[in-house]
Parts: sequence; C-alpha cells; structure tokens
Amino acid sequence: MPRPRLPRPLLSAALIASLLLTPLSAKPELERLEPAHWWAGMQQSELQLLLYGENLHDCTVSLTDYPGVHIDRVERVANPRYLFVYLQIAPEAAPGSLELHLTAPDVTYSVFSYELKPRVPGSADREGFNASDVIYLITPDRFANGDPSNDEIADLREGLNRAEAYGRHGGDLAGITQHLDYLADLGVTQLWLNPVRENDMPRWSYHGYAMTDFYRIDPRYGNHDDYLHLVAAARERGLGVIMDMVPNHCGLQHWFVQDPPDAEWINFAGRFEPTNHARTTNQDPHAAQIDRQRFNDGWFVADMPDLNQRHPLMADYLIQNAIWWIEEAGLSGVRVDTYPYPDKHFMARWASAILTEYPQLNLVGEEWTLSPALVAYWQRGKVNADAYTSPMPSMMDFPLNDALRLALTAPEETWNAGFIRLYEAVAHDFLYPAPQDLVIFPDNHDMDRFYTQVGEDLALFKLGLVFNLTMRGIPQLYYGTEILMHNRDHPGDHGVIRTDFPGGWAGDPVNAFTGDGLTTDQRDAQAFTRRLLHWRRTATAIHDGALRHFVPDDGTYCYFRYTDESTVMVVLNKRPEPAVLPTARFAEILPPGSHGTDVLTGTTQDLSESVVVPARSAVVLEIH
Amino acid sequence: MPRPRLPRPLLSAALIASLLLTPLSAKPELERLEPAHWWAGMQQSELQLLLYGENLHDCTVSLTDYPGVHIDRVERVANPRYLFVYLQIAPEAAPGSLELHLTAPDVTYSVFSYELKPRVPGSADREGFNASDVIYLITPDRFANGDPSNDEIADLREGLNRAEAYGRHGGDLAGITQHLDYLADLGVTQLWLNPVRENDMPRWSYHGYAMTDFYRIDPRYGNHDDYLHLVAAARERGLGVIMDMVPNHCGLQHWFVQDPPDAEWINFAGRFEPTNHARTTNQDPHAAQIDRQRFNDGWFVADMPDLNQRHPLMADYLIQNAIWWIEEAGLSGVRVDTYPYPDKHFMARWASAILTEYPQLNLVGEEWTLSPALVAYWQRGKVNADAYTSPMPSMMDFPLNDALRLALTAPEETWNAGFIRLYEAVAHDFLYPAPQDLVIFPDNHDMDRFYTQVGEDLALFKLGLVFNLTMRGIPQLYYGTEILMHNRDHPGDHGVIRTDFPGGWAGDPVNAFTGDGLTTDQRDAQAFTRRLLHWRRTATAIHDGALRHFVPDDGTYCYFRYTDESTVMVVLNKRPEPAVLPTARFAEILPPGSHGTDVLTGTTQDLSESVVVPARSAVVLEIH
Repeated sequence: MPRPRLPRPLLSAALIASLLLTPLSAKPELERLEPAHWWAGMQQSELQLLLYGENLHDCTVSLTDYPGVHIDRVERVANPRYLFVYLQIAPEAAPGSLELHLTAPDVTYSVFSYELKPRVPGSADREGFNASDVIYLITPDRFANGDPSNDEIADLREGLNRAEAYGRHGGDLAGITQHLDYLADLGVTQLWLNPVRENDMPRWSYHGYAMTDFYRIDPRYGNHDDYLHLVAAARERGLGVIMDMVPNHCGLQHWFVQDPPDAEWINFAGRFEPTNHARTTNQDPHAAQIDRQRFNDGWFVADMPDLNQRHPLMADYLIQNAIWWIEEAGLSGVRVDTYPYPDKHFMARWASAILTEYPQLNLVGEEWTLSPALVAYWQRGKVNADAYTSPMPSMMDFPLNDALRLALTAPEETWNAGFIRLYEAVAHDFLYPAPQDLVIFPDNHDMDRFYTQVGEDLALFKLGLVFNLTMRGIPQLYYGTEILMHNRDHPGDHGVIRTDFPGGWAGDPVNAFTGDGLTTDQRDAQAFTRRLLHWRRTATAIHDGALRHFVPDDGTYCYFRYTDESTVMVVLNKRPEPAVLPTARFAEILPPGSHGTDVLTGTTQDLSESVVVPARSAVVLEIH
Repeated sequence: MPRPRLPRPLLSAALIASLLLTPLSAKPELERLEPAHWWAGMQQSELQLLLYGENLHDCTVSLTDYPGVHIDRVERVANPRYLFVYLQIAPEAAPGSLELHLTAPDVTYSVFSYELKPRVPGSADREGFNASDVIYLITPDRFANGDPSNDEIADLREGLNRAEAYGRHGGDLAGITQHLDYLADLGVTQLWLNPVRENDMPRWSYHGYAMTDFYRIDPRYGNHDDYLHLVAAARERGLGVIMDMVPNHCGLQHWFVQDPPDAEWINFAGRFEPTNHARTTNQDPHAAQIDRQRFNDGWFVADMPDLNQRHPLMADYLIQNAIWWIEEAGLSGVRVDTYPYPDKHFMARWASAILTEYPQLNLVGEEWTLSPALVAYWQRGKVNADAYTSPMPSMMDFPLNDALRLALTAPEETWNAGFIRLYEAVAHDFLYPAPQDLVIFPDNHDMDRFYTQVGEDLALFKLGLVFNLTMRGIPQLYYGTEILMHNRDHPGDHGVIRTDFPGGWAGDPVNAFTGDGLTTDQRDAQAFTRRLLHWRRTATAIHDGALRHFVPDDGTYCYFRYTDESTVMVVLNKRPEPAVLPTARFAEILPPGSHGTDVLTGTTQDLSESVVVPARSAVVLEIH
C-alpha cells in the first residue's frame, strides 16, 4: 500500500534548535531504557534496546565482552534523544549482566548494565487458556479498592472522583488480590483485566486503553510487584491471568508521543485524523486504498494517537513489549484490543513472534462485528481467498453474542426469529477453523450488561448463562454479571456499564463478596452461576466434546456435547409452560434407555420417551 | 447419510392385484416414452429411456442394429408399468431413427422408433447469460394473454379466474411473444420465465412450481412449438431465454407421483412430511443427521412431493430432462429453484452434467438466505472447509438485495445504517470466487415489489435501479418493476405481487406497452429504466470492469467500474440536498482533470475539484 507523503515533523524546528544548542561533547544521559531487562534462552535472538535521553545521538555503543552476545547495529532517528541498539543474543548465552558503554565524540561516556535474567522453568511451554477455562473480565478501577493509599498519585493527571461515572473510582490490584478467594470459589479459572498499565491522561483514564507507558503499571492500581504478586497469588488458586494489550494506539500523553523518535512514529504524522472504522477493508477486494489506509492509520479518538506499526522500530518495540510482559509476569494469555485496526501484516508478525516464544499460549483478538466471516478471517488455520494467513488462535465471538441476545429477546418464535437465529449463528461455525477456541460471552465492558440486554428477566438471564457455559468455546463473564449488575437507566453508557462491584469499597451498603445486602434474585443468580461454574470445571464433554445441535422447535433448543466418555444434553426452553420433547428425535446421539441427571438440580429423569424441561428454563443433563 | 427405513409402498397391494389380473402373454402397450427423442453427438453417452405402460415388466428389449448404439441394460422396478432402458450412444453414432422392440414372454411384441436428432451447429458451445446481460423475469400467467383460446383447457384441472389473486389469469407464451419488441426496446437481453411446464393442479397452478409433467408445456400457456417459437423469436431480437428448473419437487398430480416406479421415488415414501427449511444443515459441522435428512427430504408443502434424487433412476431422469430442454429449445441458461434443498451431491452431479454438455452455459441457483457465506458455498471455485465443491457458475444474490432495501429505507445514515450496510454487503464479495457472476435484483416473484419496498418513493426507486444496473453482477428485473408495479395493500402477498401487467389483456384500461394511461411517475420510471438499460448494453466497464468503492459518506455512496479502456463513476446521494463531494478522495482511480458525462442526463461536469450530485438522486458518469 503506498504511504501518503508526510509533512515534516511538527517538532522539527524545536529539534533542530535543540541540536544546535547542545554542546557537541555533552555527556550522554540515559533517562529511559526499554525493556528494562531481558532473558537468556529466548527464541528471538535479536533484542531492541530503546535508549532515551540527552546527548545520545552521536554516541557510539559498545559492549564489554559477553559470550554469545554482540551488538548487531545501532539505529539513529531524527530525534537525537533516541538510540535504538540491537543486540544479538545466541541461544547459548547465559544469564548475567551485560555492560554497555555510550561514548560521545569527545570520549566522555556513560556505562549501564543490562540484565539477562534466567527464565522460569517451563516458561516457553506454558499452556494458555482454553475451553476448559472460564474467563472473568474485570475493569480494575471498578472492582475493589484494596489500597486507598494509591487512589491519588501526585504526579499523575487524574485523581479520584467516585461520583463521576467516567472518573476514577479507586479500584486496584490489591482489591483484586484480596478477593481471589471469591473468584476461585465462584469457579472461574482465568482473569482478564482491562489494561492496568499507566494511563496518565487528564480524564477517562479509568478505562485503561490510553496507555502512556507500555512498561509501567499505573500507580493508581499498584506497582509492578503488585501486578506480579496478583498473578502469582491467582496461580496459587488455579487462576490464570490474561493481559489486555493494545498494539493499535496509546494515550496522547505517552512520553514517546510527546517527544517522538520521528515523524513516522505516529500515523498521520502525529495529527489527529479519525479512523473510518471500515473494518471490511481488510478483506474487501473492491476497497479503495485510501479507505484501507484511513481505517488502519486513522485514530480512534483525538487523545489516542494511532501507532505506526509499519515503522520497523515501532514494530520491534511492540513485539518485545508483549513478550516482555508474558515472560515477566507469567501470563496465561493475551487479549488483543481492536485487532483489525493495526496493519494486518504487522499483527500477523506480532502474534507469530509471541507464539514462537510460547507455542501453546492463547491470544484472543477483538473484532467487533456481527459477521462471522470477518471474525473467521483472523483465526489461525483459516484459508482466505486473498492468501492472508493469521496466526491468532482465538477471536472474540461477537456474532454469537448478538445472536444470543436476539434469540432470547425475540418477541416471538418464528422461522427467522428466536432460537432459530441462535441455531443459524452456531451453524456458521463452518466458517471457523476452530470454533471451540473462540471466546464466547454474554457481555463485556463495552456493551449493555447482560441482565439489561434480556430486559431484567431472570429466566432469560439463566438461559443465556447456561448457553454460554455449555456451548463450544471459551466462556468469558464480566465482573458483576453473576449478581445481575445492570445499566437499566443508561443504555450503552460505558461509565455505568462499568459500575463498581458492591462490596469492593469500604462502607459499601451491599457486599456481593459476602452476599450481605444482595436481593433474592441476585443471590439466586450468583448461586446459579457458581453451581454451573463448579460443575463445568470437570465437565470434560464441555471442555473437549464435539457439539451436535438440533433445529429449534417452538421455543426450545436442544444440543449435545459429547466425547467418547461422556455426554451432556442441554435443552433451553423459552415456553411459558414445561416442554415435553420426545427423545426419539435425538436417537442418533442419545442411546436408548438413557437417563439424565440435571447438574442444576441434581434430579434424574428417564429419557426413554421424552425429556421434560420446566417452563422458561434449561436442563443440563449428564447422560447415563 | 443413513436412509430411514421406509415402509412398503402404499400402492403395493393394488400393484400386486394388478399383476395377478394381467394375463402373462398380454401385449406390451407403450403409453409414455421419455425423453421423446435425443440427439447424436452429445457428451453423455448413456441415455435412459423411461418406458411406461401396461405389460412392460416382463418384456425383453432389443434394438435393430444401429452403428454406435446398443442397449446397455434394462432396469426393472417394483411397479410393472415401468421399464428403464439404458442405451449407450457412441460419439460417432449418426443421427437417425432407432428401432426398439419390446417382446413379451409369449413373443407378442411392440416396436417403436426412437429418433436421434442432429444437433444445431454450435449448440454445445453456446454462451450463457453473463454480466453484459440484463434478465427480465416474467410470471407467464400474469404478463399478457396473447391467446384467449387456451385460457381454459378441458382436461386440465384449473380454469380461468382472473378475479382471484391466486387463480389463473390467462397470460401465455403468445402474450410474451407478441410483446418481444417492447422488451427489446426496453433494453433487457434475457428472459427468465417462471416455469411453463404442465402444472395440472387443482389450485394455485399459475405459479408453475408444481409441475405435473417435466416434458410438457402447460397447454394453458401454449404448446411445445409455441415455446420453441418464443425462444427463436426472442433470439432474433437479441434476447436469450432462461428456463426455470425445479429438481427438488413436483406437483402432487404428477403422473409419476400418482403411479410411482417404487416406494423410494418420492421422499418419505410418498407421504407428506414438511421440510424444516434448515438450510444451514448443508454446511453446519454440528448439524444433526435427522435435521439434515428432514431438510433435504422433507416436502415444501403437501401438494409438492419431494423427489428422491438419491434414487439412481430419478437422478438420471432429472439430469436428462434438463439437458433435453436446453438442447431442444436453445436456451441460454437455467434458473434453479430451491437450490440447497435437494441432495447436494446430486445437485453437483446435475449441474456438472449440464456443464459438461454446455461448458459456457450459465446456471443460477436460488439460495434464499441473507448470509453471503451460505450463498458463496455453492459457487463454482469456492474452497469449502468440508471439501464440498459446487459447479454452479452463478447464484442469486439475496444478501445484496436485502442490504439494498435496508440501505435505502434506513431512517437515518449512521455508522451501521444506511449506505454503510450496502457497502459492507458488497465488501463481503471476498467470500465469493466470482462475485461478478452473481445475479442481482431489486425484487422477484417471491418478494414485495421494489416500489413497495422503498415506500413508493420514486427517488429511492431510481437509486435502487441505478445500483442494480451498475453494480457488479448480472442484473435481473421483474416484469412491471419498470412501471412501478406495487403491492402496497398486500405486503408479502404472492398473488398480488404477481399482478397482471397492464395492457396484457384486451380491454385493460391502462397499457404499459404503449404507455397509454400510465401516470407521470410510471412513464418517468419506464423511461428511466429504458435509458439506463440501453446505455448498459454497450457499457463494457459495467460488463467486465473491476469495482472499486469508497466508504459511504453521510448519505452518499460512490463507486467506480473500470477496465483499461473505460471508467464509469457512480454516486448515489440520499441527502435531501445536492451533494458536492471533493474528488481528491477518488484520486487513486479518477485521473486529474477528469470530466464526467452523465448517462442519465447527458450533461458533463468538470471533476477536477468535486462531483455534484443532485438531491436524492444518482449520477452515472462516463469518465473522460
């Protein structure tokens, strides 16, 4: 794709002035070094060190002899405060401390050490989240305030304002860590946190997607060790942690936006030009080049500059940042924000690099569209007509999410409304190379709370929960969904959707962790969720089983999950009266004389003739 | 797929009785012989002759010596009134008359001759309809009554009842033939007629899809020669004829349903079991076998028995029937009804057999779904995950039809409504191996009239017409759309959608053929259609050109069709005021200093800076 001609950088006059004012022989001052350390024994032998500070541009860089490590090259950019030093690290290089020298033309110099750490055994072979897991998504500012001392941080722009829906409420990593027992007891097995890295933006920083430092935990959530501690404490309870990564953009206050390496670092030369959101340009054979470029390079909003992933130094930077966090924190996966927006060839390289280091890790991309064909385009193994191959193991299943909502809320069951919509959505699995690896969800941080989606109908809520926890795929729940959190009076309002979890703040009148003050319906929903999740943890037919589903019949939808060892029969019933479905229709999968024990109630029914499903509810039957 | 166990044929007792009553030595009586003749020099060397009559079962069949032709085998079925004689016809066999003998056990016999006709030169190489064409769909009962003498046929069940929307109105082949000049002058180049073969059903026979004889033109439309004459007369005016074929089902009064060869001839052993319409079972990896079978084998309605295409004798019968009509009448293509409903492996064989005889013919299948992924599954060249390969060159583009309606009628233009829906639908062309070969249409015989779809808004109607006549694909119009025929007071009512074309009946107060009595808007629409169609006949950029489209901008949608030789720019504008769009955005395809001459008005505008599109209208600009 041809690149637009870019104007000269906005700061160039200032840069030139700064160069002229700098004495030639000034001592190099290293203000930033990224990544802060690396590891011996990684697959990737090349390592980019970003050096930032005064008087770097004209330095030579040298390395005290270190077996297996040498400087490959030094890349200089327009901005003299940057140096990009590329090391080559051989597989046999041992952990230890490198000593690098920066020598200015007048032979003044700086020395800095750089650590190659040993890897945790098994790091490369860690297994990512999969269909045996259930992910719990937390908006960290809104879950629990475990450490009020970090609510206000002097040198960060935005302080606490719990009265404002879009302000910071004080939730933090300590709050999550303190409630890991609740989460483990609830029965989820993976935590996905909305981004917790520094968002030093003047407003709306609570959402986390306007990062201003890719390597720093936002101090209002805690410090670096708090994050590592959370991951370790979660692991002790059988919970993995999934990091939310945003290769597309950052916050306007990011230090490297404020003082970029060159004019190409940020798309549209650092000026705000909005994206057209024309996601189909990635696939469309008829798309205009200008639209494709505008989609990929345009900014989401004016305070989120769009990163230029075609810049080779940026590309390396982003890849390393992802790998660094996985290795550093011991993550079990990555959720990738706005997957189709960055340059797609870069994204393939980015994901491939991660999977080269961690072949069994899982990465799930966000492609928010109702078209399964667009989502499928990005999944690993998909044979695309344009020959594009994507390495992404998993994608968010937005089409199924929407189909569930439509199915549950359809005013009536007809040939094209109600469960048939859901059935047809599932049927479109033929487009996916691995539908079982998709992440499925009733809601997330960007959409109406599920209880709101279903019109605060507890029966529909439960049907939706059963569907998400028994259908093929990796379920993801949003914090508070289990206690019927809603955004009744504010449809689509992100600040309200991301309401504080009750009990997470001292003095909260209701405490959902203990159950104190919850309504009967909330307790019911929470217990229902817990029961299903606990059962699901060992339900191998749900984890690994094939799916067979039957055409919905007048407000009922029946499907089976099965392996050679076990079979689970699920029937959803929207009818206002009990459904009695003859089982002869299911003979191809249900052996004659079967019985089914409902995991929700523990009751067993004889399925020889029929299956009985109470009005407006589901049965989840272990077949024996 | 396992076949259900079928009960014994319903007529078996009667058949056994009939056998017992028949003297062993009775003379064979040939009541039917299908096909009536064949041709020398076909690709397919095997020919099935269906013989039907009394005393056939025990006959031996022999052939007087004929170079290159021999009897391969004789297949007997449960019903003694059938014999299926398979001939082998070598490529070098000359045209001529075969003499076949039926000899009963007592050596009484019958002789019949069977003609192998010479083929019309170039028959095998005929070119089918393509994107240089525009198809005009006619419901023959409702277009023009050219021969009132055939309105009532004594030995057919349903007579004339023009007062009844679902009755027969008397339109016929003569009516179409008499108005070919109107059609040629309008500018269409292909005629697709809803089925004109015998539908001897007691009611609703006007629609044509309940055939009772696959080889006979329904006498209420005319006779066999009338059909051949229509095709020839159309050809003289540059019009091809596309036959509507229905391999899925027939009418309950079909003679071979009333007296079937065996119990397997009709699905579900000849008893009505409705289809579940679960079209996704063809693709769905999770579909239940029972649903797949019910979809393929279930009947549309109780008076349309579902043919068993897995019956080898039925399969051959249907394939030959299709080839017979193409060769006999000199057709330019086939429209295939309810394409996904019959057994898909048979349909691939059926279409392949036709295309083996006529490699450049076009066949267009009806898969009525809004999912382009389902439609694309059936197009030739599609690489499907389940390894199914379909030979169909063309499919009806229902998804685009729906997207156009939604785009034009959206209450407002937003990020997910209005033209963006249409743009995204077109973008899904990445799913199709050959989007330019799809048939696109504003309406057809099964959906609301286009003028009704757009709320009787003439401006939207014209935008839709421009879109259909300039977008990639093969446009199809429905008779009367050009004069704003509507079904205002009867949404979805087939009988009204298929209203009589005014002027087709003696005494009609309005005559759309001459223009007498049309309203101003009707004349305007008709002239607009004619102008576009005439221009389109030589607009090679529309026929063969690539497509490039631009993200819709606030109620405008711009796209280009282009070859190396010519470029056409189309801009649709829904705004209530003129749109002035800067042309810099289109620089990748619009050369600097271009001018555009509007094919609708003849006016030329300078496109150096911008393109001007009047309020709520389109420009179609030839670029120079």
